[in-house]
Amino acid sequence: MYSNHYIQQSFQVSYAYRVFFTSHLFDPANTCLKDYLQEQASGHYRKRLLVVADEGVWQHHPYLQEQVSAYLQAIKEVELAAVMVIPGGEAAKNDEALFFRLADAIDQHAIDRHSFVIGIGGGSVLDLVGFAAAVSHRGVRHIRIPTTVLSQNDSGVGVKNGINFHGKKNFLGAFAPPAAVFNDAHFLTTLDARDWRSGMVEAVKVALIKDAAFFEWMEEHAAALTARNMEAMEELVHRCAALHMAHIGGAGDPFESGSSRPLDFGHWSAHKLEQLTDFSLRHGEAVSIGIALDSVYSSLLGWLDQAAADRILHLLQQLELPLYHPLLDMQEPGVSPLVKGLEEFREHLGGRLTICLLKAIGQGAEVNNMDTALLQKAGERLKELSYAY
Amino acid sequence: MYSNHYIQQSFQVSYAYRVFFTSHLFDPANTCLKDYLQEQASGHYRKRLLVVADEGVWQHHPYLQEQVSAYLQAIKEVELAAVMVIPGGEAAKNDEALFFRLADAIDQHAIDRHSFVIGIGGGSVLDLVGFAAAVSHRGVRHIRIPTTVLSQNDSGVGVKNGINFHGKKNFLGAFAPPAAVFNDAHFLTTLDARDWRSGMVEAVKVALIKDAAFFEWMEEHAAALTARNMEAMEELVHRCAALHMAHIGGAGDPFESGSSRPLDFGHWSAHKLEQLTDFSLRHGEAVSIGIALDSVYSSLLGWLDQAAADRILHLLQQLELPLYHPLLDMQEPGVSPLVKGLEEFREHLGGRLTICLLKAIGQGAEVNNMDTALLQKAGERLKELSYAY
Repeated sequence: MYSNHYIQQSFQVSYAYRVFFTSHLFDPANTCLKDYLQEQASGHYRKRLLVVADEGVWQHHPYLQEQVSAYLQAIKEVELAAVMVIPGGEAAKNDEALFFRLADAIDQHAIDRHSFVIGIGGGSVLDLVGFAAAVSHRGVRHIRIPTTVLSQNDSGVGVKNGINFHGKKNFLGAFAPPAAVFNDAHFLTTLDARDWRSGMVEAVKVALIKDAAFFEWMEEHAAALTARNMEAMEELVHRCAALHMAHIGGAGDPFESGSSRPLDFGHWSAHKLEQLTDFSLRHGEAVSIGIALDSVYSSLLGWLDQAAADRILHLLQQLELPLYHPLLDMQEPGVSPLVKGLEEFREHLGGRLTICLLKAIGQGAEVNNMDTALLQKAGERLKELSYAY
Repeated sequence: MYSNHYIQQSFQVSYAYRVFFTSHLFDPANTCLKDYLQEQASGHYRKRLLVVADEGVWQHHPYLQEQVSAYLQAIKEVELAAVMVIPGGEAAKNDEALFFRLADAIDQHAIDRHSFVIGIGGGSVLDLVGFAAAVSHRGVRHIRIPTTVLSQNDSGVGVKNGINFHGKKNFLGAFAPPAAVFNDAHFLTTLDARDWRSGMVEAVKVALIKDAAFFEWMEEHAAALTARNMEAMEELVHRCAALHMAHIGGAGDPFESGSSRPLDFGHWSAHKLEQLTDFSLRHGEAVSIGIALDSVYSSLLGWLDQAAADRILHLLQQLELPLYHPLLDMQEPGVSPLVKGLEEFREHLGGRLTICLLKAIGQGAEVNNMDTALLQKAGERLKELSYAY
């Protein structure tokens, strides 16, 4: 009855950025950032810079506030517009007013699409700053300077940005690659013990699904890593960042249009644990427990041999990371918040689960179902272990 | 002194969508949208639909509210979650609370990344709905059903979404291609005269910079278009949409990372005129005046011959579009708000203008400077003409 026709649109968009590894980025003798900004500068357009820094970073490095301004003002090809200081941690992402403050600052300081917003801080600050930049003028460039293990080896080198909204983690966000990332190892020296340790979990995770040799390297260097040996930590950060970047760039779905997310290994329960403990568990601690749970589950499923599962638990323990939380007690699956969380997660994914488990150390594989009875057994096994140690 | 190294990231992201041309989209006998939704449905995932409609559309087509629900509920492969009605026009984009209301609705109605938000309305409603979808869950799919000439031939078939922020037009936004667009010609029959006419301006614009044959076709069909002949309007919408889409997909910069924006021909002054008249000039009317100004300027510059400039002004007049506004009086360039606007625009672009002018009908070309004295002359020429008619 109706004659319909259509025009087909299709195109590709290319993205490229570099992740630099350095230390003392703002020391006048270090030309890494200066070289980058001079290379980006063009005779035709004014490049303005808006720096947004995590107040915790200023506190741990009191000399830095002055050093950052002096370093950037000395580069003639760019124009330092302003330096803003904002709260760090999850608080940065919970406050919509802070997002609007950043958008206002981008407007008032005339940060256009030739200019840069530079975020300095942990993952939360970078997520917020990246999101504000991504949606101002439909996208101004942002440079990330991550200051924690977790943001240097994982979140900061990827393409996701976002804030929490009405209690929903990362509900508002955008896939927006940074213009560049500068990983400054010196920032890691002032991290507290929990942040140092929990940042290493994403390295364990990515090794488990992708790179058995890297896992073995971590086993060999566990003592050095725990003793805060910087050389070992720099290698861990570099290898972990490289694996994450290779996955994003090489797996064919950088902006996650499909359902497969192998990098979320160990994360389904971790997200729920963070929420149920009101974030008293740090992300890395919750992921450590989530990795332990899904590794034991993989072995109970017959995928992963027992010796491999034991090696995983042993490495997490050597890195002083937790394996268990009372919420893993799923004796009554009907009322267990973790089992309920799995159901919510299935709903969240549109009715079908996609969860990454392990076939072997270095080899992830996906399932679309989790067996509640097996899950309960895995929780029990971890409870026994936690008493044994 | 410092040994720095880096990892290079690079990847491409592919985008594809169809723009359908139909009429009476929600008539049960029209399977265009049904076919599309069934094709998208997958056995694995639940596809939920959130419809957001412009209240003006419901008012002009009272039968539609019921028809939309009945049509979508009859498609077993999808699940209609809710139908929301919001104000249309620029008001839709000025109210941040409305943006948050949409984000809340996407959350509460469990619209995940397998689901769809469907916007029905003019360009403003589609811009708002597209932006809310683009940043919820880092991007849920949105389907656009544009109901005006302007949104069917221009804004609705492109990749831009956004809202106004603190008085700045489109300050918050995202490049996010729609999942699909459905242009329903029947909606055009109820447009008021100003919306009918002003929607044709983007067709004049894109013909002038890209397609002389299309310009000639409009000269031949000007009387039919003014008399609201639907066959002529459907051809205009189709050709104009096709030219815009070909530019976005074929010119190598769909998300406008560079400075060249030929589709903004006639727009530098139009944006300023809209703002200075407090939006009493519609976008299309302001662009008509902007096209007239930059066409006469192109001929005074010696680029466009006088006869071609006259043809352009004549076509705009035949389409009953304005050529002049008292703000074009730039006798005192120092105090002319339009000349000041040009300076602000240069600032906005980062210190260097890029403005598209005409070499001939069908051939745009860029300049990086505008001569104030010539601009003043062009304004005078249009003032004389406006008295002559």
